[in-house]
Amino acid sequence: MPFVNHLKLEKQDDFFPSHLPMVAFEGIYNDHKVTVVTNGKDSVYGTKVDKVGTVPAAMAAFLALEKTKASLLINAGTAGGFQRKGAAIGDVFLLEGVANHDRRIPIPGFDSYGVGTIDITKRIHPGKMAGGLGFKTGNCTTSNSLDRTEEDDKHMLSNDASVKDMEAAAIAWSCELQDTPFLGVKVVTDIVDGDKPTQEEFMENLGKAAESLQSALPKVLEYICGKEHHEL
Amino acid sequence: MPFVNHLKLEKQDDFFPSHLPMVAFEGIYNDHKVTVVTNGKDSVYGTKVDKVGTVPAAMAAFLALEKTKASLLINAGTAGGFQRKGAAIGDVFLLEGVANHDRRIPIPGFDSYGVGTIDITKRIHPGKMAGGLGFKTGNCTTSNSLDRTEEDDKHMLSNDASVKDMEAAAIAWSCELQDTPFLGVKVVTDIVDGDKPTQEEFMENLGKAAESLQSALPKVLEYICGKEHHEL
Repeated sequence: MPFVNHLKLEKQDDFFPSHLPMVAFEGIYNDHKVTVVTNGKDSVYGTKVDKVGTVPAAMAAFLALEKTKASLLINAGTAGGFQRKGAAIGDVFLLEGVANHDRRIPIPGFDSYGVGTIDITKRIHPGKMAGGLGFKTGNCTTSNSLDRTEEDDKHMLSNDASVKDMEAAAIAWSCELQDTPFLGVKVVTDIVDGDKPTQEEFMENLGKAAESLQSALPKVLEYICGKEHHEL
Repeated sequence: MPFVNHLKLEKQDDFFPSHLPMVAFEGIYNDHKVTVVTNGKDSVYGTKVDKVGTVPAAMAAFLALEKTKASLLINAGTAGGFQRKGAAIGDVFLLEGVANHDRRIPIPGFDSYGVGTIDITKRIHPGKMAGGLGFKTGNCTTSNSLDRTEEDDKHMLSNDASVKDMEAAAIAWSCELQDTPFLGVKVVTDIVDGDKPTQEEFMENLGKAAESLQSALPKVLEYICGKEHHEL
């Protein structure tokens, strides 16, 4: 909400079908139309928790792009970071690739579909942007779990991940279907390959990470506005 | 395709947005409009494999219900079966509940959202239908992996699952959002708690299971057509 208020965006009650939990805000920033979408809460599993995970995220992204025909989607959020890849709490990462680490389908063809690696650097260059803004870059590995198993560890390593989240690969899939460039902006809340359980470290650092994201996002928008895809 | 041909359904090229991989067929059966939807193949990960898993399934179900306002959604497919719950290769199960076993979020409130149990028996009674048709009943546990880990085993047991698939819980979530009753018809291709790797047994029995599903589905339609929800 601080970001929505900072940009003076207005809530759009008719943006999504009324039976969907997603919420949209829209407005003009630097002569560019900006839509902020959150996955919201729904009554299926109780109204207390946000709809984290791949299914609501992919659906929100697909429907939002279908409606806005936006020229760029930014997936902004928190993530776990790998210290073996240089990540520290509060770091901002711009993503260069996404993949899944919880879709194991050991049948030829289906195996790579399951991993679902998507190269984000085909039309925009997060590395260039990260250099200009003082952010880090790396791959994001996605699953529907906040924690991790030894099996997950193998696949996260194989995805050469700098950060781990619960949405990016699904949102990037919707972007590919809609032929829209995807920019992932992930702030580190916890160290995946550290010694604290993710959930404890996550709750401890969520405030700090939210502040970091809060300061990063306007800089990202400022950098993007007025540039063509090939200039990003 | 044999089922689509049996029902004399016609392919609908404009049913889904053209950039989505899903495919729809429609026609009239016993005075009832029937739409068959498959998740199709897409160019994001190559065009060789079907879009299995929760994300495309939830999206296809949501969009199909948004368009058709159907009075019932039937999720027909294959599944692994648990012999400890009496499942054997080729068995037809009608689902009474669904839940996820790969969405572990150990934060209060988010934990139960992650499992995402949905009771299917609020408006229709699969048990009654199964009795009439000679099918079995049970819960389905869903994940994005064909294989399983020891961690998965714990959650599948906790979900009291008779069968394991890769879509049901996601499709049932879309049905809940659309306020549409969900009927799951799952045919067993492999024994999860047996001694063969799922992928080998799956490929071996896919043909047999497809025949079983092929014979079950017309019986299900025959039973349903002409009945109100409360009579099912």
